[in-house]
Amino acid sequence: MTNKRKIINDPVYGFLTIDDDVIFDVISHPYFQRQRHIKQLGFTSLVYPGAVHTRFSHMLGALNLMTRALEVLKVKGVAITEEESLGVRLAILLHDVGHGPFSHTSERVIADVHHEVLTLMFMRRINEELPQDDKGRKPLDVAISIFEDSYPKHFLHQLVSSQLDMDRLDYLSRDSFFSGVSEGVVGTERIINMLNVCNDELVIDEKGIYSVEKFIISRRLMYWQVYMHKTVIAADTLLLNLLRRVRQLIGRGIVVSGPEYLMGFMSQSYDAESFEVDASLLERFSLIDDNDVMTAVKGWMSHDDIVLSTLSKQLVHRHLAAIRVSDRPFASEQIEQLRMRAQELYCISLDETAYFVGTGILRNHAYDFNDQEIKVLYKDGSCRDISEASDQLDRHFLEKQVTKYYIYFPKELK
Amino acid sequence: MTNKRKIINDPVYGFLTIDDDVIFDVISHPYFQRQRHIKQLGFTSLVYPGAVHTRFSHMLGALNLMTRALEVLKVKGVAITEEESLGVRLAILLHDVGHGPFSHTSERVIADVHHEVLTLMFMRRINEELPQDDKGRKPLDVAISIFEDSYPKHFLHQLVSSQLDMDRLDYLSRDSFFSGVSEGVVGTERIINMLNVCNDELVIDEKGIYSVEKFIISRRLMYWQVYMHKTVIAADTLLLNLLRRVRQLIGRGIVVSGPEYLMGFMSQSYDAESFEVDASLLERFSLIDDNDVMTAVKGWMSHDDIVLSTLSKQLVHRHLAAIRVSDRPFASEQIEQLRMRAQELYCISLDETAYFVGTGILRNHAYDFNDQEIKVLYKDGSCRDISEASDQLDRHFLEKQVTKYYIYFPKELK
Amino acid sequence: MTNKRKIINDPVYGFLTIDDDVIFDVISHPYFQRQRHIKQLGFTSLVYPGAVHTRFSHMLGALNLMTRALEVLKVKGVAITEEESLGVRLAILLHDVGHGPFSHTSERVIADVHHEVLTLMFMRRINEELPQDDKGRKPLDVAISIFEDSYPKHFLHQLVSSQLDMDRLDYLSRDSFFSGVSEGVVGTERIINMLNVCNDELVIDEKGIYSVEKFIISRRLMYWQVYMHKTVIAADTLLLNLLRRVRQLIGRGIVVSGPEYLMGFMSQSYDAESFEVDASLLERFSLIDDNDVMTAVKGWMSHDDIVLSTLSKQLVHRHLAAIRVSDRPFASEQIEQLRMRAQELYCISLDETAYFVGTGILRNHAYDFNDQEIKVLYKDGSCRDISEASDQLDRHFLEKQVTKYYIYFPKELK
Amino acid sequence: MTNKRKIINDPVYGFLTIDDDVIFDVISHPYFQRQRHIKQLGFTSLVYPGAVHTRFSHMLGALNLMTRALEVLKVKGVAITEEESLGVRLAILLHDVGHGPFSHTSERVIADVHHEVLTLMFMRRINEELPQDDKGRKPLDVAISIFEDSYPKHFLHQLVSSQLDMDRLDYLSRDSFFSGVSEGVVGTERIINMLNVCNDELVIDEKGIYSVEKFIISRRLMYWQVYMHKTVIAADTLLLNLLRRVRQLIGRGIVVSGPEYLMGFMSQSYDAESFEVDASLLERFSLIDDNDVMTAVKGWMSHDDIVLSTLSKQLVHRHLAAIRVSDRPFASEQIEQLRMRAQELYCISLDETAYFVGTGILRNHAYDFNDQEIKVLYKDGSCRDISEASDQLDRHFLEKQVTKYYIYFPKELK
Repeated sequence: MTNKRKIINDPVYGFLTIDDDVIFDVISHPYFQRQRHIKQLGFTSLVYPGAVHTRFSHMLGALNLMTRALEVLKVKGVAITEEESLGVRLAILLHDVGHGPFSHTSERVIADVHHEVLTLMFMRRINEELPQDDKGRKPLDVAISIFEDSYPKHFLHQLVSSQLDMDRLDYLSRDSFFSGVSEGVVGTERIINMLNVCNDELVIDEKGIYSVEKFIISRRLMYWQVYMHKTVIAADTLLLNLLRRVRQLIGRGIVVSGPEYLMGFMSQSYDAESFEVDASLLERFSLIDDNDVMTAVKGWMSHDDIVLSTLSKQLVHRHLAAIRVSDRPFASEQIEQLRMRAQELYCISLDETAYFVGTGILRNHAYDFNDQEIKVLYKDGSCRDISEASDQLDRHFLEKQVTKYYIYFPKELK
Repeated sequence: MTNKRKIINDPVYGFLTIDDDVIFDVISHPYFQRQRHIKQLGFTSLVYPGAVHTRFSHMLGALNLMTRALEVLKVKGVAITEEESLGVRLAILLHDVGHGPFSHTSERVIADVHHEVLTLMFMRRINEELPQDDKGRKPLDVAISIFEDSYPKHFLHQLVSSQLDMDRLDYLSRDSFFSGVSEGVVGTERIINMLNVCNDELVIDEKGIYSVEKFIISRRLMYWQVYMHKTVIAADTLLLNLLRRVRQLIGRGIVVSGPEYLMGFMSQSYDAESFEVDASLLERFSLIDDNDVMTAVKGWMSHDDIVLSTLSKQLVHRHLAAIRVSDRPFASEQIEQLRMRAQELYCISLDETAYFVGTGILRNHAYDFNDQEIKVLYKDGSCRDISEASDQLDRHFLEKQVTKYYIYFPKELK
Repeated sequence: MTNKRKIINDPVYGFLTIDDDVIFDVISHPYFQRQRHIKQLGFTSLVYPGAVHTRFSHMLGALNLMTRALEVLKVKGVAITEEESLGVRLAILLHDVGHGPFSHTSERVIADVHHEVLTLMFMRRINEELPQDDKGRKPLDVAISIFEDSYPKHFLHQLVSSQLDMDRLDYLSRDSFFSGVSEGVVGTERIINMLNVCNDELVIDEKGIYSVEKFIISRRLMYWQVYMHKTVIAADTLLLNLLRRVRQLIGRGIVVSGPEYLMGFMSQSYDAESFEVDASLLERFSLIDDNDVMTAVKGWMSHDDIVLSTLSKQLVHRHLAAIRVSDRPFASEQIEQLRMRAQELYCISLDETAYFVGTGILRNHAYDFNDQEIKVLYKDGSCRDISEASDQLDRHFLEKQVTKYYIYFPKELK
Repeated sequence: MTNKRKIINDPVYGFLTIDDDVIFDVISHPYFQRQRHIKQLGFTSLVYPGAVHTRFSHMLGALNLMTRALEVLKVKGVAITEEESLGVRLAILLHDVGHGPFSHTSERVIADVHHEVLTLMFMRRINEELPQDDKGRKPLDVAISIFEDSYPKHFLHQLVSSQLDMDRLDYLSRDSFFSGVSEGVVGTERIINMLNVCNDELVIDEKGIYSVEKFIISRRLMYWQVYMHKTVIAADTLLLNLLRRVRQLIGRGIVVSGPEYLMGFMSQSYDAESFEVDASLLERFSLIDDNDVMTAVKGWMSHDDIVLSTLSKQLVHRHLAAIRVSDRPFASEQIEQLRMRAQELYCISLDETAYFVGTGILRNHAYDFNDQEIKVLYKDGSCRDISEASDQLDRHFLEKQVTKYYIYFPKELK
């Protein structure tokens, strides 16, 4: 426990200030520190070499935005107690703590548990370790309640998770910054200055409409240009197929070696229940990160199984599959034909070609209507949804969902 | 072999353009791709969380600056052939290809070879794999000659390695950018615009004096504030002690497991000669990077040896040693006392305390006189060294070498 | 005539390089230098204090983008001769040279001539002063032909004036930069890298679609947030009313003094024909800029006419009218009522209240269909308009024209 | 009087927040608004076209830094009351309000009064107009006392005026930003975070030493590269000679017309006493700014006096004198010779050549010892001057004063 104001340099915002002991302790916790070794954007650095930034820096950045948002809301007269202020800051700080190696890519493959469920488990575990106050309360009680959306003031949850939460504001800025895709830049500071609360809902002041429109468009641009870049899809798919092959081989009794903690999750299938039953599982899960996966894959390059070794070499040497994108699903004949050619190329069985040839779907909403809507607060005190308020980003535009289909296959078959 | 102009986003410079097939092939080579997994600044990200950028992006960035510098010099009438232009660009592109895990930190510990010697080995190996032209020349012939400084035009070597080389210009800009230490910013573009050649020496036009002064001061600031930050020194020292302990245990016949390729270098001591004798060694060395080290250290947290497991936990959990810095060497009594207290703290032998308590030296020249001097080209055509040309950064200032002494010991003994 | 490469610092792009003597001479010409005293965004700095940048820097910036665009097009194999290259660069350099004080605001009020017509007059006048080559050609011949769109290669004109011209790319970046409205940032570098030519039309490569979408949205945001900001509208309207009042008073024989060159245009009404008839008129027009207007207005604060002095004080002291914006035209009763109250407020006649109360229209297309469409070049060599190519920015979105109505009146009547 | 939080976009810092009614009123005052028309760097934009930023934005920027500095000091436990906090913010906001056209250039030429004396006069005049509170105090009482350094807490004055005041921190950042001289960038945020108070002196925390060193070097670089750029010196000298010629002609009874308020100061010589005697003088002074000077000079291009018209044309057309800089004073023979050649060139009397040929001195301290020293606060609580604390910026370096001599003469005589 230190009692000093700590300043951390951050290339996106300049300086981050940590001025609370509990926050400092949470950041120092091994469960938080492990996020130093989990890249925010997984394989995206294969396309954007600068995008090697970590979940660790994202979570600190989101905390920084939350601190600023709370200041703005307080100035505007929104009632937020000191306890709530700390709670919502801890909630955003920890919101991604449940991510495993390569974040979303390997989610449900390493352990069949959603990362938010794991986040809650980690939050509770950290909370247990922290001392309770004289009223028997633990430092993360409020944070957990806000994260789960069981806290009475709903807008606090929305600051952590909604269309305009501090998570998105930070990751769009950060991903744009580190990838060098300057077009993704979002007017974070302006949006935060325009935040307000109306009927316990997080809303945006009327003057901020254009900034929110811009934010929605930027997010869409980042989706297609960065998050769903063909090369990233190819690498993600490759890793998934690799891990599936490892599981399959182990299932068949074939020895696949690799870092101990990772292999523990490869030889077993764990779901949320497993984590509840075996308390040690979370600790073991906490010990795997991007490093283990990359180290393992390098080792597998010399495995006897031709499928595993080929996939591993492709990932390590960045020899990725070709990807075709289409507005329509691909014909099964086309897939079959490619699989037959892959069979020949690699001298493998037709079944095994499923590791090299396959299809998938890409989906992108400009704005997700299943999610909460962004509400705009007018000078007259009324609130309307942004799709009604915006001149141009009307429902027609916002509702439009784009679905694309892709097929991947060995580059040699082009 | 592709024949298209490739554009890579880079957050520091915006866009990098690759317009040559040989350069494209070299970048695609596994020996180059491995640098994606070696951080430019090793453990610096423990202090500056954004500074996780890689050698890969640094080498591309240095290539970009070289391309710009060549344009400037050609406009100024400096004779540079197409072949030389490609050669010097390949030389800067590959100048760091010999770095192993954690770059300088583990240099000579994993293999007792200077990274520049390894760079040359990698360059030659890549060159062998490339096709020769009809005159029997290989694409990297000129690059290797420039890198070794055996090429007749000496200034080409200076663009790769000297007080004002493209390496330094890129790393200062890049490290400043990713760490968020904005004060390290260097007027890269202006300095490049001021480059010139005089008597086969790389010089700076008179108008660029202030920029060079600023560059020297920035470099010094980056040294003390970033490269020699206490926390970084503590982590570097910890890793070195860790690797030494592993070697010692293996020497004693104790099993220490870990990623295959890394452990191969832990159980043997290789020097430059070994690499010449055993051609496979370079390939095996090429297979280890930061990932292997971090994965290994996590595994060692549960090793039976208390020294190894303690050091490993300290590194993984960022529980680093305390560092004191002084203008004078530390008294041996002070060291002995700390070692005795460490012995008690960890219940280890006095000998073993050498892994937890020790001293070291930090040194920093503003400007290194053993190195080549920066020469300034005056309008009248004469050249003088910057220490004579600068109003204020005179020899008194530039020659001043700062030596500091540090001692490290367990935080608990504070 | 100098023969050296000149480098100019520009905060937006870093460095601008001038490497051609004709370009250097044109920049040195008084007709070009006068643009140092005409702000790019007129009264916008009343809202965004940083936005005091000049047409001078915009024109240099647009030249810089043109130089880069030409490099990109040449690499892609588009045939552009040296003469055309210089011509199109001179055309963009001079494209705004015809602007008078406060650019668009006072256009047609000081002289009833469109600024592009004046630009052509200035270009021809400068061309006359430049020496002809041995074939009897003048340096600006090609530039003028491109500017007028009479040059055979149409895409060269489009680089100067079209939906994706270098003018817009520069002004959006520059206005965003100086105003501090970071959301207006456009991926200039990426768009330029995606430019291409197809059937003599300037097009964008398929990969650049998202950047163009972003560009269109950014432009719209800048329109509403900056260019049509209420305060700017209020100040623009105020200046127009001021100048109209001056004309009216002079028409009635009342002496209104002020800077000589400006007053020459206040006591007469000149149109394009006048400029052709009287060759000295252009020279006299070239002698007025923002300084004269502001100096004059300060002097008019003490004029006997209450309308003129009141309007002048309001502008100098930034005591601007209130503005209401609505989706519908304002009722004439509302206007009448406000005028009656203004009459009382200032003790002026009802007629004179027209200088203080009035209405106007704001219009904004996301994308102007009367203008040329942005065409997208597909990998298969086909071209389609972006409204067909874009997933989301479809014709429905792009065609939507937003019309808003505003009323202005003295703040005291709020 | 409004009661709302106002946000102003600033390209340097993003957003400036005005949250106090008195501050809002002071900014709205005509004496403050006039600084919109006085460029921060006078003729510097003749070299750096982006550097057209105004004193207005500088004063707002300095206020912003002050607000942040106060937050930092309060967190560190420095006792600052609400009244003092407002006072020191008003003091920095108004610190440059006394500047006349072209700031320092025309200081003492238009009126023979130091700008700080004028600042005090403006502060007192504004204070008179503001309402007093129930204790008979006026809003600017504390601000004036701090500005004059008569307020008991000396460090408050140092925040406004000292080696490390908010004025310098802002202008270095701002001038560097707008000029595009990125090397001038100062770690403003870090320096502010390192501020502290010790024995009523503003000091810097030990950890901030390198940033302060960098700040001193940057300031020096900005001096030579921007503030004392040859072209700026030439333009400044030209304006001074122009105004002197106008005074001389008027003294001889020759009519020189121009903007009324400016000419009032040209036909009389006013000193500080005059301003005290004639209360209306300050108001009249407040009505002149850069616009009047530039408008006047344009008018003088057609004056009958060949000296005045020549000087005027040179300034308007940017046809500036040649400048030679030397370490030694120029020989009187050289000056005489140039004057004789100038006499011939312009067909003027030898006396009159003094307007075209002359000499001057440039001086620059890295660090001014006549001024207060920057003190460093060590962890042990002791304070030392930075020249003792810094490893390299020792007294030898800091004391070194550079004096240069320049001569200017018509370019045609080169």
